[in-house]
Amino acid sequence: MNIPATPLVCALPDVQGGPDMRGIPIQRVGVRGVRHPFMIACASGHPQATVAQWEMTVALPAEEKGTHMSRFIALLETWRGEPMTPQGLCGLADALLGRLGAEASDVAAEFPYFMEKAAPASGVRSLMDYRVRWSARARRGEPARFSQSIQVPVTSLCPCSRAISDYGAHNQRSHILVRVAYEMPGASDLEGLIRRVEAQASCELWGLLKRADEKFVTERAYENPKFVEDLVRDVAVMLQRLPGVASYEIEAENFESIHNHSAYARVSDGRRHAFE
Amino acid sequence: MNIPATPLVCALPDVQGGPDMRGIPIQRVGVRGVRHPFMIACASGHPQATVAQWEMTVALPAEEKGTHMSRFIALLETWRGEPMTPQGLCGLADALLGRLGAEASDVAAEFPYFMEKAAPASGVRSLMDYRVRWSARARRGEPARFSQSIQVPVTSLCPCSRAISDYGAHNQRSHILVRVAYEMPGASDLEGLIRRVEAQASCELWGLLKRADEKFVTERAYENPKFVEDLVRDVAVMLQRLPGVASYEIEAENFESIHNHSAYARVSDGRRHAFE
Amino acid sequence: MNIPATPLVCALPDVQGGPDMRGIPIQRVGVRGVRHPFMIACASGHPQATVAQWEMTVALPAEEKGTHMSRFIALLETWRGEPMTPQGLCGLADALLGRLGAEASDVAAEFPYFMEKAAPASGVRSLMDYRVRWSARARRGEPARFSQSIQVPVTSLCPCSRAISDYGAHNQRSHILVRVAYEMPGASDLEGLIRRVEAQASCELWGLLKRADEKFVTERAYENPKFVEDLVRDVAVMLQRLPGVASYEIEAENFESIHNHSAYARVSDGRRHAFE
Amino acid sequence: MNIPATPLVCALPDVQGGPDMRGIPIQRVGVRGVRHPFMIACASGHPQATVAQWEMTVALPAEEKGTHMSRFIALLETWRGEPMTPQGLCGLADALLGRLGAEASDVAAEFPYFMEKAAPASGVRSLMDYRVRWSARARRGEPARFSQSIQVPVTSLCPCSRAISDYGAHNQRSHILVRVAYEMPGASDLEGLIRRVEAQASCELWGLLKRADEKFVTERAYENPKFVEDLVRDVAVMLQRLPGVASYEIEAENFESIHNHSAYARVSDGRRHAFE
Repeated sequence: MNIPATPLVCALPDVQGGPDMRGIPIQRVGVRGVRHPFMIACASGHPQATVAQWEMTVALPAEEKGTHMSRFIALLETWRGEPMTPQGLCGLADALLGRLGAEASDVAAEFPYFMEKAAPASGVRSLMDYRVRWSARARRGEPARFSQSIQVPVTSLCPCSRAISDYGAHNQRSHILVRVAYEMPGASDLEGLIRRVEAQASCELWGLLKRADEKFVTERAYENPKFVEDLVRDVAVMLQRLPGVASYEIEAENFESIHNHSAYARVSDGRRHAFE
Repeated sequence: MNIPATPLVCALPDVQGGPDMRGIPIQRVGVRGVRHPFMIACASGHPQATVAQWEMTVALPAEEKGTHMSRFIALLETWRGEPMTPQGLCGLADALLGRLGAEASDVAAEFPYFMEKAAPASGVRSLMDYRVRWSARARRGEPARFSQSIQVPVTSLCPCSRAISDYGAHNQRSHILVRVAYEMPGASDLEGLIRRVEAQASCELWGLLKRADEKFVTERAYENPKFVEDLVRDVAVMLQRLPGVASYEIEAENFESIHNHSAYARVSDGRRHAFE
Repeated sequence: MNIPATPLVCALPDVQGGPDMRGIPIQRVGVRGVRHPFMIACASGHPQATVAQWEMTVALPAEEKGTHMSRFIALLETWRGEPMTPQGLCGLADALLGRLGAEASDVAAEFPYFMEKAAPASGVRSLMDYRVRWSARARRGEPARFSQSIQVPVTSLCPCSRAISDYGAHNQRSHILVRVAYEMPGASDLEGLIRRVEAQASCELWGLLKRADEKFVTERAYENPKFVEDLVRDVAVMLQRLPGVASYEIEAENFESIHNHSAYARVSDGRRHAFE
Repeated sequence: MNIPATPLVCALPDVQGGPDMRGIPIQRVGVRGVRHPFMIACASGHPQATVAQWEMTVALPAEEKGTHMSRFIALLETWRGEPMTPQGLCGLADALLGRLGAEASDVAAEFPYFMEKAAPASGVRSLMDYRVRWSARARRGEPARFSQSIQVPVTSLCPCSRAISDYGAHNQRSHILVRVAYEMPGASDLEGLIRRVEAQASCELWGLLKRADEKFVTERAYENPKFVEDLVRDVAVMLQRLPGVASYEIEAENFESIHNHSAYARVSDGRRHAFE
């Protein structure tokens, strides 16, 4: 048996701590796909327990060989059970700077979020689920920045189909994806933003609908037809009026009921670098 | 440095070829997630080129330690470029018995299949895509068995929503998944089965629809409301009359335009073991 | 404008409640893809908050036209916040029989489950996540049946690669999927089963490993090589000795580090109908 | 029955053609998730048949209400069966400008690509599959721009694990994702780029390996340990020397065999806007 020449020592050397000669700084290095329980501090009072998938990275200067992967998880573990807020996530990104000795860090947690809603006619209460991503970016010497993405599922009803058909109109589930960067973490409002986005659709969705509610949502969508272009524009108009927004990007995807592909639109305010 | 006691020899021993003492036969062992080009011999004449994801397994008797994974891929390579038919897939499963010295084998290829369709009013032609899975099961001394699964995307329009609403009716994309085992491989007919399934929906889908077509499909769905229960039952009635069917299972899933979850139904003829 | 002849009434008729003439009973009809918070009552004392994806169905006799989809969600809402146990899930399946007037029901909740583990050398504590599916099946007049599936991610190290190579051995992440049906719901033990499955791998996984731990797991896997066949057989031997198991099925998939496809094996005790 | 006031005419008006007052230009609107056969003109001579998923969009000025979704599919249908090259895709993006009367268009096709490789010791030939995305961006009055993304699956072996362990070293499948924008479409070289990326890994992958090959790849990876940081840096060094590259971005994700999460790194040359 022939062990290759690279040194195999029995002590535990810090291989990552060595120097690097390639002259390539790395913008992001860390861990990804980390599932962890997530407690989100709600507007509604007591925190909501959900499960997040995390990405945590730092910038690595050209002259350092590697980062220390276990420290990301160790830091995440120290926050286990803490109710998380936008400010808290910024604090976590700041803590990462210190823990890894880095100039820049990015942390993001993606999680299902539940909101209790009352059905429009019967008033019965049930949960609706939304896909949310919270991101914080820290740079040494600057206040950390917060942004959030929300995927809001809605109904869209096609204005063309309605206008040209003697009866009916094709409609479908659509996803509106809104990414908002805030001037200050405290300016964000998750439930408020979800409600404002839902208000732009042909109709919003509910988990539980009785027959009177089903009549309501069917007629409401028919009275309120929207193209995929209308969805992104109406959300853009809403966001332009929302205080505290530093930049935004909006996507809408209609899972067309008459095709096996989607109609899709994207609008941004041209300051998209805030999300990278 | 301290190498553990397990023998490390420099020849290349056949570790898999050794005996096993645990007394556990393995029903299926082999490879999975193998992507490979797939030529399917069409009814329409010249073969269609697509890409399949393969699972190929054999049964392993209790007394054998392991199978030979590379032989599955080697066999697949010998069939590269050959137009595939249901009979051909059965031949591949039979060949696996010999190549691996096994009593039983199962091969399955899942692939997108394209069918050219003419739009209902304008007649413009375009492709529709379907998710298909072909499976063959070989047992030494018996003719190999063939089954296919087809996921057919369609429109469903809710009869309740239509009946209770002053105008409109919620509709959405639905997936009808049909699994059929055949008495003989030659009894299967992919395009014919797709067409028969589409005929049971509120409306079928097309890739390309002009305005006159959009009017047609909107009205057609409204005239033809179906619950998820209707979808699976109407497909079942159709399959009961289809010659050569040994057993079937039908699922339908409506991606409800008014909810963020699906309505779902499943029907089988109680002979489901044919698909395992 | 030309409304088609089907009755459009302004009252809210119970369309689903009508009779059906097609003579096709439906084994399962209900809702699928319902995301909802899930509280699981742990062995370790206070309940764990996670998020589940639900499928809830009932059998529909041939002569009934449709089920009542909103009642599934209404029932789920009444259990919101209740810590769930295997017995509790069976109770939910039983409650569905009454709520829907059905002879048979099936409920299943799939969720990430977290277990705190201590690293093997340093003892540092962190969470590992597992994908779990709990299922209950109720039949009128019989006690409900409980089964669970657990996807346990582990390390596998190839015995052949180790035996034929002068140094090193290819290893990779593998998923062991265990489905167990129990004689009684109370016989199940989630954390105990996870630990027993992990013990059969080349090495188990942890969320957080310090350098001394990384040395431990590297050497442990090298000392303990296993084929995909060994994984399923060793888990089968373990399950055959576990009291309270009515039937089982085991799958293992190795995401090979030297290929772009998986090695795969499946073993069952031949009583697989228990999982359908 | 009470039809709402919005005009329902029986002619087929061009609803999308109307004016818009909201003052919001849309950067991208069109179709997404369109599956279609794809013929790629290969270096190796005759074209390779695969299946692509398309996204095709145009920019919509603030004053126009909507685009014409069917024209995207109609254009795609006219290219069916044509062998596609980078220049061809740029031509398709240019054609979209005319067909939709737009100032800007973006088309992207994502597809599996197969390359025949000879195993390192035995020389047996088999296919390896790669995930490729081709993108073209057209602006009226400018030559269209071409970029491609390639996901290259490789083996990575951990230098730290190797250095601290008496024997063995954890290794795993990794994905290296390379996005390259070219100065001219003709500067791109798909197979050449794949080979250059594979050369930076601990070891490349093959579809079919005999025992002598398995020994080779096991030892090769052990002799050639790389952190996730090394993967992105070595690919960056390679790309900096490649002629015709306008900008690049590199990601690497190691599906760690000792964790249930990934190690991840990203490097770009700071000109990332080229990919948006």
